Amino acid sequence: MYPKIGVIMGSSSDWETMKHACDILDELQVSYERQVVSAHRTPDLMFEYAETARSRGIQVIIAGAGGAAHLPGMVAAKTTLPVIGVPVQSRALNGLDSLLSIVQMPGGVPVATVAIGKAGATNAGLLAAQILATTDQDLAERLEERREYMKQMALESTGDLV
Amino acid sequence: MYPKIGVIMGSSSDWETMKHACDILDELQVSYERQVVSAHRTPDLMFEYAETARSRGIQVIIAGAGGAAHLPGMVAAKTTLPVIGVPVQSRALNGLDSLLSIVQMPGGVPVATVAIGKAGATNAGLLAAQILATTDQDLAERLEERREYMKQMALESTGDLV
Amino acid sequence: MYPKIGVIMGSSSDWETMKHACDILDELQVSYERQVVSAHRTPDLMFEYAETARSRGIQVIIAGAGGAAHLPGMVAAKTTLPVIGVPVQSRALNGLDSLLSIVQMPGGVPVATVAIGKAGATNAGLLAAQILATTDQDLAERLEERREYMKQMALESTGDLV
Amino acid sequence: MYPKIGVIMGSSSDWETMKHACDILDELQVSYERQVVSAHRTPDLMFEYAETARSRGIQVIIAGAGGAAHLPGMVAAKTTLPVIGVPVQSRALNGLDSLLSIVQMPGGVPVATVAIGKAGATNAGLLAAQILATTDQDLAERLEERREYMKQMALESTGDLV
Amino acid sequence: MYPKIGVIMGSSSDWETMKHACDILDELQVSYERQVVSAHRTPDLMFEYAETARSRGIQVIIAGAGGAAHLPGMVAAKTTLPVIGVPVQSRALNGLDSLLSIVQMPGGVPVATVAIGKAGATNAGLLAAQILATTDQDLAERLEERREYMKQMALESTGDLV
Amino acid sequence: MYPKIGVIMGSSSDWETMKHACDILDELQVSYERQVVSAHRTPDLMFEYAETARSRGIQVIIAGAGGAAHLPGMVAAKTTLPVIGVPVQSRALNGLDSLLSIVQMPGGVPVATVAIGKAGATNAGLLAAQILATTDQDLAERLEERREYMKQMALESTGDLV
Amino acid sequence: MYPKIGVIMGSSSDWETMKHACDILDELQVSYERQVVSAHRTPDLMFEYAETARSRGIQVIIAGAGGAAHLPGMVAAKTTLPVIGVPVQSRALNGLDSLLSIVQMPGGVPVATVAIGKAGATNAGLLAAQILATTDQDLAERLEERREYMKQMALESTGDLV
Amino acid sequence: MYPKIGVIMGSSSDWETMKHACDILDELQVSYERQVVSAHRTPDLMFEYAETARSRGIQVIIAGAGGAAHLPGMVAAKTTLPVIGVPVQSRALNGLDSLLSIVQMPGGVPVATVAIGKAGATNAGLLAAQILATTDQDLAERLEERREYMKQMALESTGDLV
Repeated sequence: MYPKIGVIMGSSSDWETMKHACDILDELQVSYERQVVSAHRTPDLMFEYAETARSRGIQVIIAGAGGAAHLPGMVAAKTTLPVIGVPVQSRALNGLDSLLSIVQMPGGVPVATVAIGKAGATNAGLLAAQILATTDQDLAERLEERREYMKQMALESTGDLV
Repeated sequence: MYPKIGVIMGSSSDWETMKHACDILDELQVSYERQVVSAHRTPDLMFEYAETARSRGIQVIIAGAGGAAHLPGMVAAKTTLPVIGVPVQSRALNGLDSLLSIVQMPGGVPVATVAIGKAGATNAGLLAAQILATTDQDLAERLEERREYMKQMALESTGDLV
Repeated sequence: MYPKIGVIMGSSSDWETMKHACDILDELQVSYERQVVSAHRTPDLMFEYAETARSRGIQVIIAGAGGAAHLPGMVAAKTTLPVIGVPVQSRALNGLDSLLSIVQMPGGVPVATVAIGKAGATNAGLLAAQILATTDQDLAERLEERREYMKQMALESTGDLV
Repeated sequence: MYPKIGVIMGSSSDWETMKHACDILDELQVSYERQVVSAHRTPDLMFEYAETARSRGIQVIIAGAGGAAHLPGMVAAKTTLPVIGVPVQSRALNGLDSLLSIVQMPGGVPVATVAIGKAGATNAGLLAAQILATTDQDLAERLEERREYMKQMALESTGDLV
Repeated sequence: MYPKIGVIMGSSSDWETMKHACDILDELQVSYERQVVSAHRTPDLMFEYAETARSRGIQVIIAGAGGAAHLPGMVAAKTTLPVIGVPVQSRALNGLDSLLSIVQMPGGVPVATVAIGKAGATNAGLLAAQILATTDQDLAERLEERREYMKQMALESTGDLV
Repeated sequence: MYPKIGVIMGSSSDWETMKHACDILDELQVSYERQVVSAHRTPDLMFEYAETARSRGIQVIIAGAGGAAHLPGMVAAKTTLPVIGVPVQSRALNGLDSLLSIVQMPGGVPVATVAIGKAGATNAGLLAAQILATTDQDLAERLEERREYMKQMALESTGDLV
Repeated sequence: MYPKIGVIMGSSSDWETMKHACDILDELQVSYERQVVSAHRTPDLMFEYAETARSRGIQVIIAGAGGAAHLPGMVAAKTTLPVIGVPVQSRALNGLDSLLSIVQMPGGVPVATVAIGKAGATNAGLLAAQILATTDQDLAERLEERREYMKQMALESTGDLV
Repeated sequence: MYPKIGVIMGSSSDWETMKHACDILDELQVSYERQVVSAHRTPDLMFEYAETARSRGIQVIIAGAGGAAHLPGMVAAKTTLPVIGVPVQSRALNGLDSLLSIVQMPGGVPVATVAIGKAGATNAGLLAAQILATTDQDLAERLEERREYMKQMALESTGDLV
């Protein structure tokens, strides 16, 4: 199965965050590839990755980065595929720098930004799946089932309030 | 042509921002509907809107709101369609409150967040189109043409540096 | 004794914060119920909870949530009972996101917001009791006694400055 | 009719904000008094106001202030009536200082904080009414009617999206 | 020796910070008293403390508090002695709330604000001494000697860069 | 009359703010001198000013600056006179940069920081007078009279709430 | 005279800010070229510009951008010439987003960041000249003369404090 | 070999951060000196250091400081050599105060500011080398080799995503 989602990140240290995106894709049986693609250390690779993604069958790119997080926006500048940006929590500013660097894109080049850190990575995986599910009824159903499961877990968790 | 994109906003005062999303959709010939749907004033309508969107043929929802901007996240909680959140610039805190209220969603319910204000609304329209274009080759081409046009405009604008 | 206060929270992980509200209610002999009600995972339950609260005898709702904390505001949108919002301290942004998401409600739907974290939860319990005490003289006296006790503790604590 | 709500503010320049609280109380036929009570310029009056409020029949105090906004918290320290704090938008920091000074109260002395500026003042009036309405069925109905009216206005405002 | 400096704080938990002010006063042989005086738990004591300070021979008041830190400003409202405010580092917002609550005083009632936390408490002690030293030549010399000592320590510390 | 207070500022554009300090000193009949002393444009003058201030009879220095506001802290490093820092409101960051640059001094060199902008400049004048008044009974009385006047103004201003 | 400094900016709307860098270079007789180079609209041009800059004789690149300001960092990733980043003041967040996007670069790829807006652009021009002046004695002297002139202007400006 | 780079810092406690600048200079075989130079504790040494740096052969100064970080800007005020400022992460505000104190310099006196903490110190070393490399071909090549090495490390690190 060729990958439909490209999961990239600026550094292998971002993996601890970004693996939560991959966990979701595994869970939902969505094929993906993962790779370190650094805006600042491997800029040419980044451009090549973005330029060739559509022709390789990628439909959505998930890009995680921290600090002056340029990866999601620069990938978005080189493709018209939907790009989801995950702000990785940074050391000094707790990810506020990552968030603003990713979300405050100028008109013309969108990045679909999610929350800082683990919750954001999880949601990046889900959002990618939701995008595919706009034309994949089976996946849409798996997403609904996951929602139902989340709901049941929440309902039962009142028992933990002791 | 049935609308594929639902553009909603918490108040008619958000229209000045959100019309930029609609302008893009017009330009790219993507059908859409627009409506005031307020999380706080019309919560039941909001839930109904979100619940019925997929069956009405909507594929992506764009939701704009300001301040304690609950509309995008609550719509996202009631559908597994991709929901794009536009933080409208607020009076006191310049949209930082809108941004954090929209983007910091918990794991499980993603909102694809874009920039604060007009640029964000423009990008919401583009992102919605990019999502449709994952399976619509014509639209993908129109998006590429728009990028090419933007590039030409940028190249020519050096002449304005006087 | 039927509960007069509803204490709800978005996740069982909020309990460590929210139990401080319940401790105060226990101390002041105010009856309450507690439940996980998640804006994003159990939105329908949230609406039902809010809609039926008054008829079930609830007089004040205390709602705690973190991040894009939509629970207090959405409950407030579905009832005209007083709703007290407790911003739970979030991982990346230390609860600033929770605070702004809760307090910056649009005109029309108030949420009585208290401080971030444990102090806020304690004060949510006290505020709920103070609201009941506007028409409950005995409770008002217990609140005064608690104030007197706090004062004595403060006066004695100078002895700890060594 | 003796006033049930005390509306106070640190300066007459806060009136432009705080009058929105009074407008709501007028609209809902809730009796109130209004007064400039400055934490820093009239501290003794502030204490006297807070200490005597309950015996004068006041049931809820609404206090607005900006900058190092000490009025709501200090009033709350001198009464166990519910105190609603309105952060007035400040010149340099746009009310973020007002908000934090009001909301971050220590455990033991709650202030029910609302949004910065006009929306907050409006909501302070509504919240005060909602507190009274916990034991005033007529007022509860007027609050419901106001909600219904807001809903109708929101529904009709889609017509303004042109 | 009657105390010339009053060191007060909102809670005994502030002592870990405020003791650094006392250490400086000890070192510089400036007499002081220390006491827990809570704006919110012992408001009457606070007012009495501030009102009687000058007549008791106090020349400068150092007041430390965290969160919605009202103590320094309220003391300043009740005396025309110089009041130095120390923002104690708070749990959620790291003392930014304490700082803004203390420093953003309205025109008419100044608080001499120092840095957040330990460095601020140290500097509060020094500033109090510097104020006394405007008319105490011996103390002025001890302050100069302390500066000279700090300088020597800094010069020697290059040796630690290994 | 030799000046007792030195009022300095980094630029003549700060005068619009700093004149409020001088107005207070005029009102309270406290002698002062005023001068542009720029940390970055006239660093040697700054050092000379600070070093010679005490011997020239200056008892308190008021220093206003904006942005990377180094003037108050550097003057404080060159004298043990009390130095009051006024954060001038900056263009982009509204004076938050000025405030943090002035207040966050390391242990050893205090700056008595006041509020951002006009209110801070007013309070700098008052604080300087309060410092002198620790040993000047007449000035202390003028300060008390000013407080009394402020109180009367506040009491009367309730009449403006219409 | 071949240009030694490349002044680029993400949009012609940044020119109002960036012209201040060019004014300084004109004043100091440093040759430069100027061009709109957009990270997001002309990414390939940006890479080509950065890659060829050194061989074209450029010694320092000044890059201005606002919002998610990726231009300086991405140019820095494609050259080892010194790159100076100017955060252009953005609409909603006043340039805080621009600043953090530019300055928070990961270890390995520095951007020499200056202040937000006009002052920053002026300083970018000066910093570029100071870099050239490390090996250009004439330019170093012109820089010293400019400093001397600034000093004289500051000294004379005390006359404006009226 | 006489040192070309001066590495200074406000306190020996900054060494843990600033040593990363020195590590880079060692790696790139750029000669440097290092010293504690405190703006607030050794202001005269600071001025002397800055004034004599050029004549001693220093070509670039790297200055690290935290909190009200005046060292880089004050050194920059006393020399026209390029000055690189490293914001050291502060205790309470995580280096945001350090960053703003360093970067927000007024027009006329630039400081080349890098990221907060370790990454910034590393980049300060690299930026200093890049400045020297504008006229040192060998060093320029070593910088290119380091970039190439970084690129290889990034490419290989995809293997760590497990």
